[in-house]
Amino acid sequence: MASTMELLALAKNSRQSISLATTEKKNEALCLMADYLIENTDAILQANELDMSASKGILSEVMMDRLALSVQRIEDMAKGIREVALLPDPVGAVMRTVSRPNGLVIEKTSVAMGVIAIIYESRPNVTSDAASLALKAGSACVLRSGKEAHKSSEAIVCALRKGLKAAGLDENCIVLIEDTTRQSANEIMAAAGIVDLLIPRGGAGLIRSCVDNSAVPVLETGTGICHIYVDKDADFDMALDIIENAKASRPSVCNSAEVCLVNKEIANDFLPLLHERLVTKRENPIELRLCEASQKIIEGTAAGEKDFDTEFLDYILAVKVVSDVRDAVAHIALHSTGHSDVIVTANGETAQIFLSRVDSAAVYHNASSRFTDGGQFGLGCEMGISTQKLHARGPLGLEELCTYKYIIRGNGQIR
Amino acid sequence: MASTMELLALAKNSRQSISLATTEKKNEALCLMADYLIENTDAILQANELDMSASKGILSEVMMDRLALSVQRIEDMAKGIREVALLPDPVGAVMRTVSRPNGLVIEKTSVAMGVIAIIYESRPNVTSDAASLALKAGSACVLRSGKEAHKSSEAIVCALRKGLKAAGLDENCIVLIEDTTRQSANEIMAAAGIVDLLIPRGGAGLIRSCVDNSAVPVLETGTGICHIYVDKDADFDMALDIIENAKASRPSVCNSAEVCLVNKEIANDFLPLLHERLVTKRENPIELRLCEASQKIIEGTAAGEKDFDTEFLDYILAVKVVSDVRDAVAHIALHSTGHSDVIVTANGETAQIFLSRVDSAAVYHNASSRFTDGGQFGLGCEMGISTQKLHARGPLGLEELCTYKYIIRGNGQIR
Repeated sequence: MASTMELLALAKNSRQSISLATTEKKNEALCLMADYLIENTDAILQANELDMSASKGILSEVMMDRLALSVQRIEDMAKGIREVALLPDPVGAVMRTVSRPNGLVIEKTSVAMGVIAIIYESRPNVTSDAASLALKAGSACVLRSGKEAHKSSEAIVCALRKGLKAAGLDENCIVLIEDTTRQSANEIMAAAGIVDLLIPRGGAGLIRSCVDNSAVPVLETGTGICHIYVDKDADFDMALDIIENAKASRPSVCNSAEVCLVNKEIANDFLPLLHERLVTKRENPIELRLCEASQKIIEGTAAGEKDFDTEFLDYILAVKVVSDVRDAVAHIALHSTGHSDVIVTANGETAQIFLSRVDSAAVYHNASSRFTDGGQFGLGCEMGISTQKLHARGPLGLEELCTYKYIIRGNGQIR
Repeated sequence: MASTMELLALAKNSRQSISLATTEKKNEALCLMADYLIENTDAILQANELDMSASKGILSEVMMDRLALSVQRIEDMAKGIREVALLPDPVGAVMRTVSRPNGLVIEKTSVAMGVIAIIYESRPNVTSDAASLALKAGSACVLRSGKEAHKSSEAIVCALRKGLKAAGLDENCIVLIEDTTRQSANEIMAAAGIVDLLIPRGGAGLIRSCVDNSAVPVLETGTGICHIYVDKDADFDMALDIIENAKASRPSVCNSAEVCLVNKEIANDFLPLLHERLVTKRENPIELRLCEASQKIIEGTAAGEKDFDTEFLDYILAVKVVSDVRDAVAHIALHSTGHSDVIVTANGETAQIFLSRVDSAAVYHNASSRFTDGGQFGLGCEMGISTQKLHARGPLGLEELCTYKYIIRGNGQIR
């Protein structure tokens, strides 16, 4: 077994070959990676079968579903890689040129990050997603998969590396850490100077642990306690459509809504409609967790202390009556994870108060929070949704996986 | 004495008033801050006198000079604040607008960071520099000064807060932490969710400690082991001018050069000229620390193991003979701090190899590393030079002290 430090060193040594590779060469490699993924479908499914049987009875059904691969899922992974090949190359773009009075020409230029590490959990498709995005962004990629998905990840990485080799690129641009104990995660977090960026993809515990312990810079992704505030000047039908969509179209993702805040002036009229839409009329009704004021108006569970600070990722919605937009903003400031928050109102001034004061990656006026997504934002892809303020906020596209440097050309200037 | 946590909470509560303040209001406050600084010159000098006498015999002469204030230095600080008032306001700039086929309009908008903390050492002028830049960038500012400069910083902050108050802004946009023990630095580093960004300004030890221990995102600034590579195709006079300027014009700053790499094909001709320029002809000669090969050509100290990994910040230059540009790049990859590195050559192809392969914040062709500076880059100011890759690289201007958010306007879109 290769040690984690050995694998990190291999990735670091490969980074110059990938950071200087032409767009054509990177795209050729991506297409070959997709081909080899399909070609190795049997081996990948066999490996996945081993992971699945080892986890039977240990993982929940939801987790088992995340872990499971199929011919279709592998085809989707290959399709995802080919889509990355079609995206514009972020490396080398000149972001700004400044010509100084002394004749210096300063170009702020997008360059590759170097080595990007991803620590993830049970979804094997993250392997090909992350590797293809890092590659297109000119960086070597260190993958540290969860133990339960490790055999699947190994088979996928083996196929991807065949693609790199066939394209004539250094295979070590993509390495999978072999040790799946806590030790290897700690070694990656300590590898400042070798790893340039760490992206944890998984549950809140994993992310917290990386943010708290990593000496390598971290991009925090994914936790979304998203709010929909229904203002007194809201169009009720629009509000109901947005809330149902934001809550129920895909509750397991981070851009789904967890909390609905309702202006007290409309609570008596609006809440019964909300109950009808989300409970009575639905085949799989949403469980409403109600604040004291809303309990007086509609039926539902009494909200507990933690219900306004929980990412349910389920058919559950916390509901609270607030006095006005400022009260909504104050509630969000205390409880939001800074992901995506929405106001529904026909009043432009009220909307402006909300949009300027809510300090989240995405703030919406009259639209569903579900749009916070690289594809929906027109970035073509994403490595996750950043909920931090440094470096990148919201969807992490290829540009956000790069850094920049200043290239200065002179003819002997001194200061 | 107010506790550190109390002061952090005050800063956090003030942040909305400053993030939403108009450009005019912020500029008014800055001008008043400059006025009050001048008006309180006597009080500031008295406080500084107390700091100075407490440090006598303890701090080195260089450190005592950094600590010392004078009427002139206070005037310079006020001038610095007025210059910040003249800079464009970075907050609210729309960086990109995307109109999606479904009618959503997505604006990527520059917004204030929130609360910026600066941990610094003995230079009291950092107090007004940092506070004025944070204020213009729309953020509240938490200052944690070194113990030896604390009384001076206290008097300066007192004057600055009078300016804030006179402009009708919340005084707590600028707070000085009262506790100067290690404890307060630890509390700031642990204050994720309250402090949005931590910038350490000082020696390598302070910076390392913040990077290793902070749960709050850190911008790493300042350590510069900068290289000048003299290629075989270099114009010797240009190379000598650049080296002397980069080394000797101000050795104490981070963009000064510490290492000169010389191509072996020209070493016999160039090194004697270098020795003449930096040693024989200078009133205060530079100490050369020579690799084995260069010792055979010129006089100087034999370089020890650490001389190629030391930020001398002094009239000392390490000299090494390398075989070619790739060897120079390889040496820099191992020893550079990623600040500023220079190639001197008349050969465009060789320059391109260097510029694309050296992974530093600033890479120069035929110019002195001393230009890595916010003012010289046309940013008007700086909060330091970032040597990390995340968020910002090179000079930290006002834009780099901001974050962004996506503002999305719709008319009922759901996904």
